[in-house]
Amino acid sequence: MIYDFPLNEKSRTYLRLESLFNQIHNNLGSDHPWSHIAFFKGLFDLQELLERGDLRSDLIKDLERLSQRLGHWAELPDVDLDQIRAMQQESSQLSRKLLGAPRPGARLKEDKLLSSIRQRFSIPGGLCAFDVPQLHHWLTTPASLRHPQMEAWLSDIQLLMGAIGLLLRLWRDASHFSDQVATNGFYQDTAENAELIRIRLPHAMGCYPTLSGHKNRFALRFLPTQEQPIGDVPFQLACC
Amino acid sequence: MIYDFPLNEKSRTYLRLESLFNQIHNNLGSDHPWSHIAFFKGLFDLQELLERGDLRSDLIKDLERLSQRLGHWAELPDVDLDQIRAMQQESSQLSRKLLGAPRPGARLKEDKLLSSIRQRFSIPGGLCAFDVPQLHHWLTTPASLRHPQMEAWLSDIQLLMGAIGLLLRLWRDASHFSDQVATNGFYQDTAENAELIRIRLPHAMGCYPTLSGHKNRFALRFLPTQEQPIGDVPFQLACC
Repeated sequence: MIYDFPLNEKSRTYLRLESLFNQIHNNLGSDHPWSHIAFFKGLFDLQELLERGDLRSDLIKDLERLSQRLGHWAELPDVDLDQIRAMQQESSQLSRKLLGAPRPGARLKEDKLLSSIRQRFSIPGGLCAFDVPQLHHWLTTPASLRHPQMEAWLSDIQLLMGAIGLLLRLWRDASHFSDQVATNGFYQDTAENAELIRIRLPHAMGCYPTLSGHKNRFALRFLPTQEQPIGDVPFQLACC
Repeated sequence: MIYDFPLNEKSRTYLRLESLFNQIHNNLGSDHPWSHIAFFKGLFDLQELLERGDLRSDLIKDLERLSQRLGHWAELPDVDLDQIRAMQQESSQLSRKLLGAPRPGARLKEDKLLSSIRQRFSIPGGLCAFDVPQLHHWLTTPASLRHPQMEAWLSDIQLLMGAIGLLLRLWRDASHFSDQVATNGFYQDTAENAELIRIRLPHAMGCYPTLSGHKNRFALRFLPTQEQPIGDVPFQLACC
């Protein structure tokens, strides 16, 4: 199991958005009769995060920084130059498109069906047929008609999803795991210029990591899932 | 498609709870990697409804009224007396057990894992691994261990679920659908002593019903799913 911990607000938002994208995508084509709950929760959470502020300037800066970093890698010996050039191109294309695109999520706001569901979503049990009959009518529409509509809702956030996906993938790929031990379940260290801390831990260890810290310093505490003493915990650590 | 509309606050709550029970049960044994979202949303919505007030006195009164009604039916000619007696017994057993049971949902409140997930559930994207690492550890636990734990969470609401299920089933079974027409999409009528209004409407009609009204009087308005004139809408109606 790998746990990703953000070291700043920006990477926290990126990780939240990545997780919501996965939740939305995995429930878009699902046949499960209740998959619309996870789909809509993902979508409305995403909308709320997007409404809080425009991420595009952060993302564009990060993509440019990534391009520079890829440029440095290209100068190293024994690298796959074609792959690096392709990623550089993808990164600069994404940042150019982001600059010219309308604010992501605007389309979601305009949709009448989505608005009526969103209004009711936070009411406990508020998606009953008597609350939003139009949702229940829509749910019995054949999937072949519903799925393209769901894809269309997502069309103006695809660019953002692509940019965050590329950024996180390259951050993760560029880091290496090293073996560490948390003495009595505790470990602390510094992480210069890092965005994320990744912890790799076998499920069978019967514990999970928690992280406190900010920017350069962080402390990890491993907590047992059962009431038991924790002892020393071997794990793998990567700073991205 | 059948749409159920409540005519009072009590039956509104029953319908909400029934829908949440279905949502919880259908996602309890599911293998879908995101089914926990619908399961937990159902569970936390249920907890919130249960915390708002104790439903047991309403339910016990309704079960007693049901027993009396079943008694009247037993006197009618050509009825299945064995079935009526069985339902009367089920109803009085449920109402006796409800009277002696602890307040439903108390157990859910005490669970540490559930509390930590519930705290984070309303934060947009708040179920990431860095927010609730214990959830992510739990999600990778084999289903054979997780499912019994989920069943145990539900144990003290099973009785309530059984009582509401019986009540709604008999309310629905005791009513009959009749053919009606909503002229220009509009229909109004009175419903003496009814708890629910049921509307049966083919999906292909391309419209859905909305109900306004309270206690004895109600008005139905059928709305088209596309921008189109509505015209006369044939439908079936039952008052329960």
